[in-house]
Amino acid sequence: MRPGTASNAPAVAAVDWGTTRLRAWLLDSAGTVLAERRGDDGLITAREKGFSTVLEGHLAAMGAPASLPVIICGMAGSRQGWLEAPYVTVPAPIGAILAEAARIPGQRRDIRIVPGLAQRDIDAPDVMRGEETQLAGAGLPAKGRHLVCMPGTHSKWVVVEDGSVAGFGTWPTGELYSVLAAHSILRHSLGEQPGPVTSDNPFFRRWCERALAEGGDVASRLFAIRAAGLLQDLKADDAAACLSGLLIGGEIASASRRYGKSAEPIVLIASGGLGALYAEALGLAGFGLRTVDADEAVRVGLVEAARENGMIAASGVAA
Amino acid sequence: MRPGTASNAPAVAAVDWGTTRLRAWLLDSAGTVLAERRGDDGLITAREKGFSTVLEGHLAAMGAPASLPVIICGMAGSRQGWLEAPYVTVPAPIGAILAEAARIPGQRRDIRIVPGLAQRDIDAPDVMRGEETQLAGAGLPAKGRHLVCMPGTHSKWVVVEDGSVAGFGTWPTGELYSVLAAHSILRHSLGEQPGPVTSDNPFFRRWCERALAEGGDVASRLFAIRAAGLLQDLKADDAAACLSGLLIGGEIASASRRYGKSAEPIVLIASGGLGALYAEALGLAGFGLRTVDADEAVRVGLVEAARENGMIAASGVAA
Repeated sequence: MRPGTASNAPAVAAVDWGTTRLRAWLLDSAGTVLAERRGDDGLITAREKGFSTVLEGHLAAMGAPASLPVIICGMAGSRQGWLEAPYVTVPAPIGAILAEAARIPGQRRDIRIVPGLAQRDIDAPDVMRGEETQLAGAGLPAKGRHLVCMPGTHSKWVVVEDGSVAGFGTWPTGELYSVLAAHSILRHSLGEQPGPVTSDNPFFRRWCERALAEGGDVASRLFAIRAAGLLQDLKADDAAACLSGLLIGGEIASASRRYGKSAEPIVLIASGGLGALYAEALGLAGFGLRTVDADEAVRVGLVEAARENGMIAASGVAA
Repeated sequence: MRPGTASNAPAVAAVDWGTTRLRAWLLDSAGTVLAERRGDDGLITAREKGFSTVLEGHLAAMGAPASLPVIICGMAGSRQGWLEAPYVTVPAPIGAILAEAARIPGQRRDIRIVPGLAQRDIDAPDVMRGEETQLAGAGLPAKGRHLVCMPGTHSKWVVVEDGSVAGFGTWPTGELYSVLAAHSILRHSLGEQPGPVTSDNPFFRRWCERALAEGGDVASRLFAIRAAGLLQDLKADDAAACLSGLLIGGEIASASRRYGKSAEPIVLIASGGLGALYAEALGLAGFGLRTVDADEAVRVGLVEAARENGMIAASGVAA
């Protein structure tokens, strides 16, 4: 196919299949989006309904032909998922990771799941599933050392050197926030339904700056949020902003300490309100920044994975 | 009364009344224990049954006379308790804190509650209730700077200078442990009922040492416990030891950073298995150590509070 002549015929379906959410796209051979679906039928739901049933439902709703190949990333490839796609051990080139996609047997379609990554370091064991595909779609330069931040329930920081994943780490910042807000003494401070935290909240900024100065030590400041409610009349929404600023600032301080600063701007792969909070916090930490939309990155990465596995022609874009 | 001639007549009842537990003692004028009660009817239960009903039940079971005075410390003096005993602001001499006990009106007995402490520092607000009484009963020297560690759900570290509380901080280590074990992804690693962690578990020691080297940054290592389960076959009880070592080591590293090391040995006010874990961890951190039993400290502190409030004669021990 010549450039600019991509047909509208679907070439592959791409699915980002996480623990609680699923996003699916119908794409032509150039990676152009023909249809899109979003659902709450992540891993947890799919284990009850059946992975094939859930997937075929979404494909039918998008009008996908019966023989259309499907490329999947995320927790669907975990031990608790549809088929365990064995981890690729880092360091590893990003292209080689994608090419290791595991094919699901006994399906009429060609369905493959991108593997996750394992860091088999005795002192810093770590794993990821799904973020490796975002990384592949983030448009990282082929050369140089790049530090990538992917915020979320389990935020990932990745060092990419000359197109290879050199190492990574996980900060469970989103999970700490929700678990502490719901189950710790801080629930009295944040209230039943704290509003969304915005990056212009002065409490977010102040607590983020404090955490940045503490090298990642956040536990020592948690109770101060409760005490500020008792002694300084801190309001519930501001308490939520304190907790968010403290945890995000702590994550950035800790990751900076581990990975140092890069000559290149940090690559932030994120979306929406969370992306805005991290952009603000990374700015307070003095990082230069290049922002990549997370939804777009995972879709582009899935197209790249389809190419690496020969499910669509490698010439689709480049020819 | 002359020394050594303490009668067996009860002089005061002393009550350590926390959120979930209550301990009560019948004491003679020398502070000798005549009877003891322990119950699960802490603040939460007492708010339903009535504080007076719960207290009188325990007093009757110990055979306390109807006019016996009662001194109380702990969360019973909080806003959600029986009567709010207003915080004393630090810095404050320990004796003066105890003397501020608030009397409960409308009771046939003289019943008083020891106030908590407030640190009204705009950048490090903090509060305690109950630990001030342990501190008073810990036998601290009247002179010098002493660093005190009181581990628990909300561990307190206190700097005492020449008999005054100069400042303090809270590390919610026990709460982090239980909330993460029950509600975070680590529940998959620790299992339903992790056994008690012991200080000779090599995982406890190794993760404690790691945390001590990281200056209080624990969030960056939490997910590694999960990853070690996936990649290194870490067992549930050892995962619990990792989490305990990480959090306790992190607390000690963080508090050391904030308060520095004292020329005097650190005073550890603790009991049982938790005391053993902290003793081990403080040893790994290079602290000299003097251990005080927490149960005994609170009882001795309550006797001191009864004296400071004129409920028993000040000469009971000293005359």
